[in-house]
Amino acid sequence: MGEEVFESVMDISVVTNGVHSLQIQSNEGKNDESVELDIYPLSCYYFGYKDAFLFKNYNLQDQLHRIKSNYAAHGLRTCVEAVILVELFKHPHLLVLQVRNSTFKLPGGRLRPGESDINGLKRKLTRNLSENEDGKGTEWEVSGCLGMWWRPDFETLLYPFLPPNIKEPKECTKLFLVKLPLSRKFIVPKNLRLLAVPLCQIHENDKTYGPIISGVPHLLSKFSFNMIQS
Amino acid sequence: MGEEVFESVMDISVVTNGVHSLQIQSNEGKNDESVELDIYPLSCYYFGYKDAFLFKNYNLQDQLHRIKSNYAAHGLRTCVEAVILVELFKHPHLLVLQVRNSTFKLPGGRLRPGESDINGLKRKLTRNLSENEDGKGTEWEVSGCLGMWWRPDFETLLYPFLPPNIKEPKECTKLFLVKLPLSRKFIVPKNLRLLAVPLCQIHENDKTYGPIISGVPHLLSKFSFNMIQS
Repeated sequence: MGEEVFESVMDISVVTNGVHSLQIQSNEGKNDESVELDIYPLSCYYFGYKDAFLFKNYNLQDQLHRIKSNYAAHGLRTCVEAVILVELFKHPHLLVLQVRNSTFKLPGGRLRPGESDINGLKRKLTRNLSENEDGKGTEWEVSGCLGMWWRPDFETLLYPFLPPNIKEPKECTKLFLVKLPLSRKFIVPKNLRLLAVPLCQIHENDKTYGPIISGVPHLLSKFSFNMIQS
Repeated sequence: MGEEVFESVMDISVVTNGVHSLQIQSNEGKNDESVELDIYPLSCYYFGYKDAFLFKNYNLQDQLHRIKSNYAAHGLRTCVEAVILVELFKHPHLLVLQVRNSTFKLPGGRLRPGESDINGLKRKLTRNLSENEDGKGTEWEVSGCLGMWWRPDFETLLYPFLPPNIKEPKECTKLFLVKLPLSRKFIVPKNLRLLAVPLCQIHENDKTYGPIISGVPHLLSKFSFNMIQS
């Protein structure tokens, strides 16, 4: 770990549309009602590797089975996920983890029974993205909840509201905005890839990124991005 | 106006999926991070008619032409629209205006030059939904901005972010949550229909409702709805 600086910097595969001459968001149309969000260039951050994770289940059937048995044991499953942004080519990019060169997911995961949203998310972020599993040296600034997705049944369909007639939803996934400081080391397990994907590519791209990630541009649409030049 | 109480109550054509036995949203999975939003039953509100509006332009070409000439005169056009919710069958419903039995729009409209978002929205809500055009007797509780949509060019495509490379967007539409009190008179021009559409019908229904309305469930997904029983 930490030896492969340049190789690992490449690992943040920046997915762009080849657009290089973008410019700062217009200030027109803003007023007191807009919420400003500072984001910093990708180049402010350091990216490295750590040992691979062991994943218990990859298979969708296995995963649904696990959700079922966990629901029987603990009731509603709550997941917490992070929306983390960097600036590149003057456009906001979302940090996304890619598993096995296929599935995309936001950094985060399932809460332990009784664990708070914020504590659980910080624990998961440290596990997914930090050097020391014990969280030493990494502070995460978890801001407000941006949105929630509900799984009404033991199926894959998710909704950004609790559908009518659903008494006992099986899973709730909460998205939180996590604000990055001016610099940060991201140390990612070797079997995950950390990507910075432009909002314009995620938008309406449910097919590639799934409903939660492809809906992130909506959830961020109240923000005016203040792109800090380093 | 005011004579046609029963007929006009019917005018709030409730679009449902025939589901009648819904129930209250589970409180599981909520914690301090959730934002609660009180909504009241549709039956708390009174719906009546007033004289028809004169619409200047219906035609899409005319509308784009108008946007162009207005942009030349005043620069970026800012629109403000209201997200107003009622409860029906224990599911949140969005109030939507239907124009000419076809197009759907949120209550709201274009700001006058120099007008603030909040003042402009209150003026438009009074014009679209209140008895007295002068706004007497109607207070609107405009809450935070939920999201913004950008029109980068003189075209119909809208995005929930400012796309890369766009220096001079042509239009910005801001959505605000408007909280209803426990009772309210809605007095709607005769040539508009006010509908209460369930969130589950709007979701991903871009084809019928357009991108702005069909994206509203995303924008509301951070809220836990507290459905007050009257």
